[in-house]
Amino acid sequence: MNPKEIENKFPYSGIPTFYKLQHTTNLKNVDVALIGIPFDQGTTNRSGTRFGPRAVRIASQNYGIYMHSDEGAYDLEQKKHILHGVTLIDYGDVPILPTSTATNMKMIYDTFKKIIESNVFPVGFGGDHSITFPILEAFDVDFDIVHFDTHLDFTDNVANVKFSHASPIKRASGLKTVDNITQIGIRGFTDRKANYDEATKYNSKIITASDIFKNGIPWTLGEIPETKNIYVTLDIDALDISTVPGTGTPEPGGLNYIQMRQILQNLPKKGNIIGFDVVEVNPLYDAGNMTSQVASRLALDLLGSIYSK
Amino acid sequence: MNPKEIENKFPYSGIPTFYKLQHTTNLKNVDVALIGIPFDQGTTNRSGTRFGPRAVRIASQNYGIYMHSDEGAYDLEQKKHILHGVTLIDYGDVPILPTSTATNMKMIYDTFKKIIESNVFPVGFGGDHSITFPILEAFDVDFDIVHFDTHLDFTDNVANVKFSHASPIKRASGLKTVDNITQIGIRGFTDRKANYDEATKYNSKIITASDIFKNGIPWTLGEIPETKNIYVTLDIDALDISTVPGTGTPEPGGLNYIQMRQILQNLPKKGNIIGFDVVEVNPLYDAGNMTSQVASRLALDLLGSIYSK
Amino acid sequence: MNPKEIENKFPYSGIPTFYKLQHTTNLKNVDVALIGIPFDQGTTNRSGTRFGPRAVRIASQNYGIYMHSDEGAYDLEQKKHILHGVTLIDYGDVPILPTSTATNMKMIYDTFKKIIESNVFPVGFGGDHSITFPILEAFDVDFDIVHFDTHLDFTDNVANVKFSHASPIKRASGLKTVDNITQIGIRGFTDRKANYDEATKYNSKIITASDIFKNGIPWTLGEIPETKNIYVTLDIDALDISTVPGTGTPEPGGLNYIQMRQILQNLPKKGNIIGFDVVEVNPLYDAGNMTSQVASRLALDLLGSIYSK
Amino acid sequence: MNPKEIENKFPYSGIPTFYKLQHTTNLKNVDVALIGIPFDQGTTNRSGTRFGPRAVRIASQNYGIYMHSDEGAYDLEQKKHILHGVTLIDYGDVPILPTSTATNMKMIYDTFKKIIESNVFPVGFGGDHSITFPILEAFDVDFDIVHFDTHLDFTDNVANVKFSHASPIKRASGLKTVDNITQIGIRGFTDRKANYDEATKYNSKIITASDIFKNGIPWTLGEIPETKNIYVTLDIDALDISTVPGTGTPEPGGLNYIQMRQILQNLPKKGNIIGFDVVEVNPLYDAGNMTSQVASRLALDLLGSIYSK
Amino acid sequence: MNPKEIENKFPYSGIPTFYKLQHTTNLKNVDVALIGIPFDQGTTNRSGTRFGPRAVRIASQNYGIYMHSDEGAYDLEQKKHILHGVTLIDYGDVPILPTSTATNMKMIYDTFKKIIESNVFPVGFGGDHSITFPILEAFDVDFDIVHFDTHLDFTDNVANVKFSHASPIKRASGLKTVDNITQIGIRGFTDRKANYDEATKYNSKIITASDIFKNGIPWTLGEIPETKNIYVTLDIDALDISTVPGTGTPEPGGLNYIQMRQILQNLPKKGNIIGFDVVEVNPLYDAGNMTSQVASRLALDLLGSIYSK
Amino acid sequence: MNPKEIENKFPYSGIPTFYKLQHTTNLKNVDVALIGIPFDQGTTNRSGTRFGPRAVRIASQNYGIYMHSDEGAYDLEQKKHILHGVTLIDYGDVPILPTSTATNMKMIYDTFKKIIESNVFPVGFGGDHSITFPILEAFDVDFDIVHFDTHLDFTDNVANVKFSHASPIKRASGLKTVDNITQIGIRGFTDRKANYDEATKYNSKIITASDIFKNGIPWTLGEIPETKNIYVTLDIDALDISTVPGTGTPEPGGLNYIQMRQILQNLPKKGNIIGFDVVEVNPLYDAGNMTSQVASRLALDLLGSIYSK
Repeated sequence: MNPKEIENKFPYSGIPTFYKLQHTTNLKNVDVALIGIPFDQGTTNRSGTRFGPRAVRIASQNYGIYMHSDEGAYDLEQKKHILHGVTLIDYGDVPILPTSTATNMKMIYDTFKKIIESNVFPVGFGGDHSITFPILEAFDVDFDIVHFDTHLDFTDNVANVKFSHASPIKRASGLKTVDNITQIGIRGFTDRKANYDEATKYNSKIITASDIFKNGIPWTLGEIPETKNIYVTLDIDALDISTVPGTGTPEPGGLNYIQMRQILQNLPKKGNIIGFDVVEVNPLYDAGNMTSQVASRLALDLLGSIYSK
Repeated sequence: MNPKEIENKFPYSGIPTFYKLQHTTNLKNVDVALIGIPFDQGTTNRSGTRFGPRAVRIASQNYGIYMHSDEGAYDLEQKKHILHGVTLIDYGDVPILPTSTATNMKMIYDTFKKIIESNVFPVGFGGDHSITFPILEAFDVDFDIVHFDTHLDFTDNVANVKFSHASPIKRASGLKTVDNITQIGIRGFTDRKANYDEATKYNSKIITASDIFKNGIPWTLGEIPETKNIYVTLDIDALDISTVPGTGTPEPGGLNYIQMRQILQNLPKKGNIIGFDVVEVNPLYDAGNMTSQVASRLALDLLGSIYSK
Repeated sequence: MNPKEIENKFPYSGIPTFYKLQHTTNLKNVDVALIGIPFDQGTTNRSGTRFGPRAVRIASQNYGIYMHSDEGAYDLEQKKHILHGVTLIDYGDVPILPTSTATNMKMIYDTFKKIIESNVFPVGFGGDHSITFPILEAFDVDFDIVHFDTHLDFTDNVANVKFSHASPIKRASGLKTVDNITQIGIRGFTDRKANYDEATKYNSKIITASDIFKNGIPWTLGEIPETKNIYVTLDIDALDISTVPGTGTPEPGGLNYIQMRQILQNLPKKGNIIGFDVVEVNPLYDAGNMTSQVASRLALDLLGSIYSK
Repeated sequence: MNPKEIENKFPYSGIPTFYKLQHTTNLKNVDVALIGIPFDQGTTNRSGTRFGPRAVRIASQNYGIYMHSDEGAYDLEQKKHILHGVTLIDYGDVPILPTSTATNMKMIYDTFKKIIESNVFPVGFGGDHSITFPILEAFDVDFDIVHFDTHLDFTDNVANVKFSHASPIKRASGLKTVDNITQIGIRGFTDRKANYDEATKYNSKIITASDIFKNGIPWTLGEIPETKNIYVTLDIDALDISTVPGTGTPEPGGLNYIQMRQILQNLPKKGNIIGFDVVEVNPLYDAGNMTSQVASRLALDLLGSIYSK
Repeated sequence: MNPKEIENKFPYSGIPTFYKLQHTTNLKNVDVALIGIPFDQGTTNRSGTRFGPRAVRIASQNYGIYMHSDEGAYDLEQKKHILHGVTLIDYGDVPILPTSTATNMKMIYDTFKKIIESNVFPVGFGGDHSITFPILEAFDVDFDIVHFDTHLDFTDNVANVKFSHASPIKRASGLKTVDNITQIGIRGFTDRKANYDEATKYNSKIITASDIFKNGIPWTLGEIPETKNIYVTLDIDALDISTVPGTGTPEPGGLNYIQMRQILQNLPKKGNIIGFDVVEVNPLYDAGNMTSQVASRLALDLLGSIYSK
Repeated sequence: MNPKEIENKFPYSGIPTFYKLQHTTNLKNVDVALIGIPFDQGTTNRSGTRFGPRAVRIASQNYGIYMHSDEGAYDLEQKKHILHGVTLIDYGDVPILPTSTATNMKMIYDTFKKIIESNVFPVGFGGDHSITFPILEAFDVDFDIVHFDTHLDFTDNVANVKFSHASPIKRASGLKTVDNITQIGIRGFTDRKANYDEATKYNSKIITASDIFKNGIPWTLGEIPETKNIYVTLDIDALDISTVPGTGTPEPGGLNYIQMRQILQNLPKKGNIIGFDVVEVNPLYDAGNMTSQVASRLALDLLGSIYSK
């Protein structure tokens, strides 16, 4: 084996890019760009998600060693290759300034705009949930949103702040490009009735964790409308606290990994996925990097179902 | 927003009381008093539960920001408000001396006696499980016990010590006020046959974790007798080790949060709940404060089902 | 109580042997020998499994205090004693040299050979998965292998290294004594198609985690062939990441403890278990020692089902 | 002992206020008010100082149990009581909003303004170093600044942001009330020449850590000018990394605790101390809460030398 | 190498006894017995010292691999062998019951009595500082005490409890066998004037940390009186917090390791050392097991200076 | 600021290379190449140094933001720029295979050979200390070795293994290119007399930690011979345990950072430094990444003194 082959074969070796992909901002002939967004100024409780992209990159080495530019990765349970012939890159991090929310929102927008205009599929790794809105703004086409979360994120503002991690879906609901919003995994005492009413007024479809535990995944999938384009935003706290302690507001009563994967793997049947993000990974509260591991796996599961049809 | 409103809105702000409630020992016009009991001298293995109340207080900030003295908290999954118009307070900690078990038992008793006599509903956060017996002693009425745990806690004594965390239910069984005892979640190799026989002799109803996994929650609820008054004691280790690593003797094969909540939410149908405790949270072995988070959530779930009828 | 009784009664007391058993290399009148194998040179990612045996010994104190040389331990859920009249010992650690894989393989072989030839049932605690092959070599009888894992471990070599933790089952498949191989819990993107083909060519029976979630445990048990002799090798990462963060390559989507126990408890019906190992516990990435706790419990579950017929 | 006495005697008991002082915003007859400032939006690297006040409060329990409203605390090394007859309170936290730097600066200012106008001595616990400027603004009198830090904090702006933790001393240098600035403990490669020039241009006196190690503490004290009023701002990273790992940018080569204390204890000889802050404690990167312990001790040392003359 | 040689050569291998010594309670022909005392019921703040002996055993493996029954260990800095021809054993743990302080005091006494009467030199590893008094009681000869600590431990009682870790030296002062007491490293605000007066009344010699930093080690040694017999009790918190974060009440301003070692190595010149203990190691608050490492090293330093004359 | 400028300005942003340098293997016009060597198979105790390079890269971001390709970094204490006009790169990691020591030694050799032959100054970050020998082999010129360590590393073999971290200096002593060896910081009971004799026989100059504490740094510098070429190998455990808990065998009684820096900064006066390595950083046992921080700082200090003459 030559040096590069060795580095690609062992998770502990090499400067850790997402899934051991090439780090480049050259978008030519690229299919998918993965971007880190180390932004946590929208956080209303535990800080630290700014180190999320770095932790996910490290965890993703475990999968990177099995991904090959030519044949993709082999999914033993599905008995098929995913990402066969697909070119993915690590685009690096969106430049983030401390304290300047407006500038940062602009830079997230600019970065994704450039990627989208190059016809490259964008995947964002947060960072807190505030990063979703500027990504959504960067799309020109109309699309539905499928939103996984404990919380509705439909708060209009937190003390007049409109771009915190409590408001991305409310902000999204004001975009002309956004049509249906489906919110999955919602639960608990961790929001106000007013925000629920706000979501309901928009006609957002709310599927609570309790609904899923009662009715099952096929029912859940049936609730998600078929459409032309879908953007997926996955707050890692939609999963149960036992699987994701390393997040800003971990909650019990959430989905397990199997349920989440089953939904993700069937989403491409509902419409054309145009991009997604995974947010709220906070390595400062994690154990054995498990939350980052799960985040990096779910992103791969979703990419795999999009790119193995 | 004024300063108090801001402090009430963000989990990181303010001296952390339970659920951001007012800290007071004035019981007038109070419905529910939450009390910390930083006692771990009854511990036979991992020390540290004396820091349980403090950790639960910090975790509970996540819910406190959504609880309002007027309208309570909104449960999105049940689509109703809980604790509407209910006045809760953080009564502070029971004074605990190091090494003086007898004095401490007396002080726990005195504290709860005063609360109960003021017609205030008491909720105790341990501390190890020894704290339950003096609480039980403080009630004058007859009542059943619903006990969640890995262990029977029916050991008569540990080397002649009668007030360790191995014996609270045995001690309780000697009280004239105590009638039926239902023990839920019991499992494993972590007790002796003699203690099982002791429990059986008392006619305690033992529902093992295996029974629940086999027969389901509705069956489990059916096994709990209807009665006039019920006291609930919840050893957090009744839950599975994946959800509660931060406890004295975590065990696999326990209930998950959904199962536990489902039981708790239906308990008020079995009788009048007169008080409860949550014990054995040990932050020194926790990850990301997850065990404290779950403990603070379950207490709220139970309070919510009592106070939203 | 005399001093020894006290030490045997409290997990925090005494030099920690497996389950508080006697530490001896005298095999006379012994039924079961538990051996630590602090070897992690076969590790291709996170180092640290060399400290696995020590962490499992500490966790196992929780069960040791309830095991009695005469009557064994009482399983409250099964309502029976296990290990009644069975003599178990802690044989200590296999001597392991740093860096000398070949010598270490030989020493593992020698240790187990001696135990097997003394008609003592061997239980190995790793260490990484490389330790399984020399154990297998030490048996003279023919046997099937039941293998729990995320990964197939059917890689012929890693950069010409034939004795890493990626290859134990491939190595085993070359032994004349080995007949059927059943691989349970396999999942994910974490192996190559070539290795899958290799396993298939051998005619190994692969039961993926997805298969088990879809078809259930009774079906799974039905898939395991009945035979004369069975060796069981349990890579702790076969379990879900929420239960075992402290391992080399934790993965979501794995079995939970209840499922795993149910399979283990029924294995003795499939044939005569001749020995087993539990591998890949890595305390450096654990939280609250939970992974070691689960590992020490599963070993006891399996021993209990073998020795309570 | 009555309950309050017990709570005051044991560090693990009671809702943790600074040094177990009374929590009140009533400033009547108060000498010293301690205030938490859970603000970390000015952080340019590791987030988490918003949890600094809470961690310092917990650490300070160790001293609180020895402080008595009547006689103060006894310093065994100085063989005298400190804080004799001095009334201290925990004023609580400044209300801090996520993301709104300007509003937060205003609220810090307002809180301290009110305290200062009540003739109460203010002590602020950060939070990141941005919190110092609004405190300084709240004073009407002229004063010198004694500034302990690794960094000069003389950066005019970070990407046009003028209120980050890189700029508080630059901001201070623009206040009409501010006269001499002495900067102690400065070191390393962690600033630009331009910022050094900026500080020099202001005529700030820079005493590097190397200067102190070479010339000793008496020399250091000699370098600090005598004046009328002094405000002290202590960035905990002025200390060596071995003593304070739990901070945003820990650096080797810093002062040890003995050196720092010796300087603090002699500062009152240089002028009238009018207030101080301790900033940049970050519990998310700490071990055994040691950084918070040292921070709470240094604040007490300084208070003790001010209030025992 | 044979298996035993290998186990003795690598720290990760073997069931961890103190310094890899033989674990036996047979005192025949033994010179020194090391005993663990997993007692933390006398703790007034952070629990967890019951796991101290186990953590010190693990840390001490690093030295055990260089100790040989025949030639002892070679001290490269002193250029001589220590413990040449000395027989040391790990006597195991004193049996400790939870909650029964009186019984435990008795069992510590009994264990040490037996060792002392066998003319074996006893070394105790705590556990909290309460364990020292029963050890002292077990000696028949008259002796001085050299006591290293942050605190005087001269509190008569804590809420009528006479055997907590605040009182061992007060208790010792009442023994007829105890003559001079020298207390070294005392510092801070962490005791009351009354206790200082109590110590002074006894005529205890108090050498504060400040005294040592001012006057140096030779002066310190000069202050310790020469005598016939000396018992040494070393509370690990006498060292600075930067070296020992993992203890019950870590404090800044303490001795560094070099200073402590220099004192210990010269103590045998002051009189015949008859035994010693190292207490208050708490692994639950440690980082990288550093506190246990230092504790195990200091015990070896002291043993080495006693047994290399 | 443009995106690249922003990424270069904030430590949390960007894929972490050493000091935020360009990651490239193009050696043209390069002055200094920094290389990670994630090898820990030579470890005889705590595994995990294979993750050392990655942790040092993350820690070094704090310095990277102040290094500029044009003007270097400004050292405030020395009041001069270092690395002015010097081109440094992150060359990435040496490809390391698990378990194949011989192959890995060869790959380390090859990597450094290529760098040296390109007239680029090599800096290696381990990994365990075994990595030093193949680096030394790659030089053609004659040179002295300056070796910082707790241990002599002069063991001929560990159980016939000649390339473990106990032997690099013994191996080096057999190279024809190696002349004087100076060993600094050596201490403790952690080696055998035989190894000391071996070092002495070679005529290695041993400067123990005690020597340095007694005689001071200028004396120490006087002991290091002047010569033509010097290679420096720095085992991080030469520093005191309070500064570097995160290493394989941390020891008390070591150098503090100030002492170490003072030696490093004067080394270029002794001869032409031709390369160096920093080894034995183990992030799995660290607190707040402090050990990695110190390692990355010391490397910069040494580079700075070489490249600012």
